[in-house]
Amino acid sequence: IELNAEYNLFIHILDDKELAPYLARLEDPAAKALPLYGIPFVLKDNIDLKGIPTTAACPDFAYIPERSATIVEQLIELGALPVGKANLDQFATGLNGTRSPYGLCKNSVLPEYPSGGSSAGSALAVALGVASFSLGTDTAGSGRIPAAYNNLVGLKASKGLISTAGVVPACRTLDCTTLFTTTAAEASRLLGLVARRDPRDDFSRHNPAWNDATAFGAIAPGFRFGVPETLEFFGDAESAALFSVAISQLESIAGTAVSIDFEPFLEAARLLYEGPWVAERYLVAGALITKNPQAVLPVIHDVLEKAPHYSALDHYEALYRLQHLKTVCDAILADLDFVVTPSMPRPVSLADLSKEPVAANSRLGWYTNFMNLLDYAAVAVPASFMRSGLPWGITLFGRVFTDQYLLSVANTFQHATNLPLVGGHALPAPKSTGRKARNDKARVVVCG
Amino acid sequence: IELNAEYNLFIHILDDKELAPYLARLEDPAAKALPLYGIPFVLKDNIDLKGIPTTAACPDFAYIPERSATIVEQLIELGALPVGKANLDQFATGLNGTRSPYGLCKNSVLPEYPSGGSSAGSALAVALGVASFSLGTDTAGSGRIPAAYNNLVGLKASKGLISTAGVVPACRTLDCTTLFTTTAAEASRLLGLVARRDPRDDFSRHNPAWNDATAFGAIAPGFRFGVPETLEFFGDAESAALFSVAISQLESIAGTAVSIDFEPFLEAARLLYEGPWVAERYLVAGALITKNPQAVLPVIHDVLEKAPHYSALDHYEALYRLQHLKTVCDAILADLDFVVTPSMPRPVSLADLSKEPVAANSRLGWYTNFMNLLDYAAVAVPASFMRSGLPWGITLFGRVFTDQYLLSVANTFQHATNLPLVGGHALPAPKSTGRKARNDKARVVVCG
Repeated sequence: IELNAEYNLFIHILDDKELAPYLARLEDPAAKALPLYGIPFVLKDNIDLKGIPTTAACPDFAYIPERSATIVEQLIELGALPVGKANLDQFATGLNGTRSPYGLCKNSVLPEYPSGGSSAGSALAVALGVASFSLGTDTAGSGRIPAAYNNLVGLKASKGLISTAGVVPACRTLDCTTLFTTTAAEASRLLGLVARRDPRDDFSRHNPAWNDATAFGAIAPGFRFGVPETLEFFGDAESAALFSVAISQLESIAGTAVSIDFEPFLEAARLLYEGPWVAERYLVAGALITKNPQAVLPVIHDVLEKAPHYSALDHYEALYRLQHLKTVCDAILADLDFVVTPSMPRPVSLADLSKEPVAANSRLGWYTNFMNLLDYAAVAVPASFMRSGLPWGITLFGRVFTDQYLLSVANTFQHATNLPLVGGHALPAPKSTGRKARNDKARVVVCG
Repeated sequence: IELNAEYNLFIHILDDKELAPYLARLEDPAAKALPLYGIPFVLKDNIDLKGIPTTAACPDFAYIPERSATIVEQLIELGALPVGKANLDQFATGLNGTRSPYGLCKNSVLPEYPSGGSSAGSALAVALGVASFSLGTDTAGSGRIPAAYNNLVGLKASKGLISTAGVVPACRTLDCTTLFTTTAAEASRLLGLVARRDPRDDFSRHNPAWNDATAFGAIAPGFRFGVPETLEFFGDAESAALFSVAISQLESIAGTAVSIDFEPFLEAARLLYEGPWVAERYLVAGALITKNPQAVLPVIHDVLEKAPHYSALDHYEALYRLQHLKTVCDAILADLDFVVTPSMPRPVSLADLSKEPVAANSRLGWYTNFMNLLDYAAVAVPASFMRSGLPWGITLFGRVFTDQYLLSVANTFQHATNLPLVGGHALPAPKSTGRKARNDKARVVVCG
């Protein structure tokens, strides 16, 4: 609670009475065998927890859900314990963690930096040791930027793998529910436990057999990874140097870097905020804005107000362009195992955000905005610390349903770099399962 | 050419000079080994043939393509011979075959009926023996209704299996290039030859291994097929009776009929013409309409003029509803091998169309409009003749990429009913390959 006064990470902390039913469940002796027995977790406050208000960081929007989100039900079923609802950029619209009437979320390491957003409080909860893992959401980077800022793994799994039923939408066709953990191995385990088609979620998808929990394992040497031939650091030489080191580290674990044209990915990214997808956000908050424009923060209002002016014609023109870009990007990815980028071009500070609340925010999304539009899987993973002590990270991304493969690479990378985890903990020694990492190129044979 | 004066099936018949390069190619002795050596085919005039005008049945829209559509290039490569460009409902907007400034397309059997559309001339070309097979397109039923009207098999394969590069779009997110043949076995062979991912077509998709040419074969007994629990025949008792007979025939080839709720499929169908998808059609013809409203037929103008008024918000609301309906419909299909419906509720006559050009047309699409929105595969297959002599047909549809399975059922059905083919020809004796029909439930094992 003291932590909260300083970091504003929670919008709601469960009290004893609210925790009671979850604790009671764990008293059953059989509960001890549950895979997540007693593990505390935090959820972003755009995700429903039965009986507790969901605010999406907008008090006038708040409602009390009668049922928890599917992913929350799954985690509770597995023995995990929800302890609080985390602060976020309002309506998950932002990448920095300062756009909330519940206070701005400071970085867990350097107080002059933000926590990153929109899943700001979720990342802080794990970074500050309040929870073992947490749930965020990610439409344009909200599950990856806060990971990079706080020395965490941020898993934005393939769209539809983790249910979004009971989650306040940002853009329903793009939204993902995400996981923050300290290690890729934990993220892999959690994903393996929860990835399944959810009948409550119309956008849910089946996880193919090649991407189940057994696909997490040792990376075969000789993997090929793409590196953008043109990189953007907005003048930050230190980020540029750290990225070069990360490439060398990936090469040292027997990978081959391949230079790739990044312009089609960036063009897709520009479609997200310059195109009609903002209409999806308006469908969530538009009614409230019409009734009471003061109910939302001015910066959110500015993003949303152009939405009603887009026509269906605009939408289809943008969709066709996106489909073309996807074809081009898919072809680039076709003979690679994954692509690596910085998670963000350079960290922006609270001072930067206060000076340029929109432009500084936009810069953060350079390497994240295109991901869901193009239907790729992504993992943000810590790669280093800057001289200031601020965590610095890379993102591995690849074709849809190669999540466990990407996590396997992230895991290998974490063991190669062996950085201290949040709270100064050391990375646990690798557990060898004897398994080999598997992706969508695993040989598939039709037998029947 | 006399035929054309009577039926208006062609917009352009290739002359000797235009045919010469294709014939020259076949003079190479090696050409004799080509799988479609010398087989004449006709293509709908919204599909490009190099050097010949593409009109989409709108003279003011016409252009001369510098390259043929991918599917046309594929067929020529396989030895087939393009002989003419077929008449259609303007911009493929219609299901009856009378909406063309190149004349109305009469039915091949009964002149007081239309050929069905929009692929009107393509169906006539096969029905009248001018071509062995033909290419159509299908957004809302245009590849199935003309098949039903003219005793043909109409294959609307899964979206993306047959390239649409070089095809004038109707709704780009929904369009399919289709095949008209006399038998399901021919359609299976052609599909096996041409189904592949086309880099020219952004909406093209890979054909999964379970749906390749070897998936066409004998149907295992005990298949389960859905039948709508509520059927619409618009008062036509004869169509109702013929449908009952068709169900019995499917049961007699060892299938089990299962009654299904059809309302969600119908609700999806209504989205197509009452929703923002019409904006896609406008993106094709809108510029021409703005410049010269007289360039398009009044009935087409009426369909398109509401398109600019749809917003991106309308679009997303409709898309979310569709996604929900798809979830519901997919669940219905999950434990079935396919669904059977009449191809149309009842045939409409030229007199009906002249009286009610829009309403009579709409009635034709009752069982076809939802198919591409829901991403299903469909085969229209002849099932009977009405007392008047008019052909009458059923449609088998199922999950995406079960095309060869559906064709296997259609083939078995054709042999069970043993109806005369177009031109009075008898169905060739079945060729046993010893293969068993395979669908997406073929057991898939991940090996590597």
